[in-house]
Amino acid sequence: MANKRIGQRTFSFNGEVRVIASAAVGGPKEGEGLLQKELDHIYPDNYAGQDSWEKAEQKMMEDAVDHAVKKASLSNDQVDLFLAGDLLNQNISASFTARTHQIPLMGMFGACSASMLTLTTGAVLVEAGFCNTAVVAASSHNCTAERQYRYPTEYGGQKPDTAQWTVTGSGAAILGKKGSGPRVRFATIGKVVDMGLKNPFDMGSAMAPAAVDTIEAHFKDTGREPKDYDLIVTGDLASVGHPIASQLLAERGYDMGKNFRDCGLMIYTEDQQSFAGGSGCASSALVTYSHLIDEMKRGNLSRLMIVATGALMNPVSYQQGESIPCVAHAVTLEMD
Amino acid sequence: MANKRIGQRTFSFNGEVRVIASAAVGGPKEGEGLLQKELDHIYPDNYAGQDSWEKAEQKMMEDAVDHAVKKASLSNDQVDLFLAGDLLNQNISASFTARTHQIPLMGMFGACSASMLTLTTGAVLVEAGFCNTAVVAASSHNCTAERQYRYPTEYGGQKPDTAQWTVTGSGAAILGKKGSGPRVRFATIGKVVDMGLKNPFDMGSAMAPAAVDTIEAHFKDTGREPKDYDLIVTGDLASVGHPIASQLLAERGYDMGKNFRDCGLMIYTEDQQSFAGGSGCASSALVTYSHLIDEMKRGNLSRLMIVATGALMNPVSYQQGESIPCVAHAVTLEMD
Repeated sequence: MANKRIGQRTFSFNGEVRVIASAAVGGPKEGEGLLQKELDHIYPDNYAGQDSWEKAEQKMMEDAVDHAVKKASLSNDQVDLFLAGDLLNQNISASFTARTHQIPLMGMFGACSASMLTLTTGAVLVEAGFCNTAVVAASSHNCTAERQYRYPTEYGGQKPDTAQWTVTGSGAAILGKKGSGPRVRFATIGKVVDMGLKNPFDMGSAMAPAAVDTIEAHFKDTGREPKDYDLIVTGDLASVGHPIASQLLAERGYDMGKNFRDCGLMIYTEDQQSFAGGSGCASSALVTYSHLIDEMKRGNLSRLMIVATGALMNPVSYQQGESIPCVAHAVTLEMD
Repeated sequence: MANKRIGQRTFSFNGEVRVIASAAVGGPKEGEGLLQKELDHIYPDNYAGQDSWEKAEQKMMEDAVDHAVKKASLSNDQVDLFLAGDLLNQNISASFTARTHQIPLMGMFGACSASMLTLTTGAVLVEAGFCNTAVVAASSHNCTAERQYRYPTEYGGQKPDTAQWTVTGSGAAILGKKGSGPRVRFATIGKVVDMGLKNPFDMGSAMAPAAVDTIEAHFKDTGREPKDYDLIVTGDLASVGHPIASQLLAERGYDMGKNFRDCGLMIYTEDQQSFAGGSGCASSALVTYSHLIDEMKRGNLSRLMIVATGALMNPVSYQQGESIPCVAHAVTLEMD
């Protein structure tokens, strides 16, 4: 079989796999922000009609999958595989969604890089013929993340400006070989990068070197340059981490220019308090699976790279003095 | 490209992908048990030379990967991808191991089904040409699991006989198209099955229906029967769950016979206190990647199916009254 790996760690797809449809749903704060007109559903509150935030996050992933499946004119039993990840312990949003939808589950974990990790793996399975149609999804929820990683929101702890705001919502995409949606062209798999940073209130700085490592690997593996893309977005580096990534790339000889942006800065308006910007699995998932895919379909973007970044720590490892290992997975999408 | 999916949810591999090498390491209790002579390393205590149990689990996964890479006569930089999963929040054993070994990481989560979930995905990537060589791994540790899921071990809480003993250790396998090791033939992906059980001290009963669902799907998809396998093992149903699985399969018309066993009952001797038997990601990983692969290479097993079972809950979902969703992923291995 043909070698589909180029360079050190880039998958080269043959162009058959497309994003047939995508959908994204968000909480009330997300609904008041920059994605207001492009989200498929906005919930009036963070409970989404459920009796716990965890169940609300699950409901959001279920709904994102439902919207995506419907937009692809499919039913759940016509989807062969479900690849999903989230931030909650033991990936419960993904697992409980799989229980509801009864689509065979391949659970993945990449923290906030889950969106592109699942998109990559789904595209591999479709291209290679192991399934005809896959749905990939990622979710996060501000209140479940705060409860799990930091303090209960009721505690009302103050945060520094380097902190980020975990995005509430879920994004999903249907992958297959039909239709006219964006084609999956390349995926560059991340190595774990750890610069020794330990501050959970500044994840952007910790994740920036991982994004840089993957972006540089992508350029080296493919021979492409920044100007070969209409837009390159990182997942959730926000206003502290993204300039660090720009600077590190410049030091390595890559002038990223104006078309290098961050999903965490494409969700909330400046008037909305989000500290340094959005974060969480839903950051890249909401922006990619609503605004960016829409822009590709409108003809405003032809070549897009999404570099989803993840911080791979947990509260116990933090308490034990461990630094924060990070990873970034990149996927490129192209319109004909 | 050829359709590699048969029936509802079974991947049909072309036979090119082999388990080039495998390795397993275990804690002191595992070293006194049935796998004593087949483990690649036995640690004298549960700390494995580290200052926390979490770091010990990480060390065990690092060592399992090291042993497997060495047995395949490779170095880490000759391995293209690392697919791994564990039970700890945010998959830290896998992520921290990826930091140490610097192999590009694709993190997966399937609770105790991680061994076969990663083996399946690794085999897909190798067969389809997205990588030449992948290492897959899974780990668990009795003390990290107790601390995270139940009570601190120092608390000394009593347990019922239906409880299981989380296995301490890690198993890893190298996948590629070389050598003469067992070939990966089929993989059947699990749907999430939840019969409404809520007792975290009886995971075997909760997981048995998921194992049954996947085994039945495998037989329907492939047209095979129990007698087509020399051995079918479940991952960690143990002495309570495994007879339930046998009975449920009998009710559905499948006489599993004597060649239906459980990895959780193949680790500890009867003299060792393990309640209903072993559990955890390391249960199927240790048995498969030491004893069973060895048996295949010795010519004692030709056709093997491993059905790794996972319970997809976390303590918060349990406290919120949720039942325990379960999944099982099956892989079949064949010697020429």
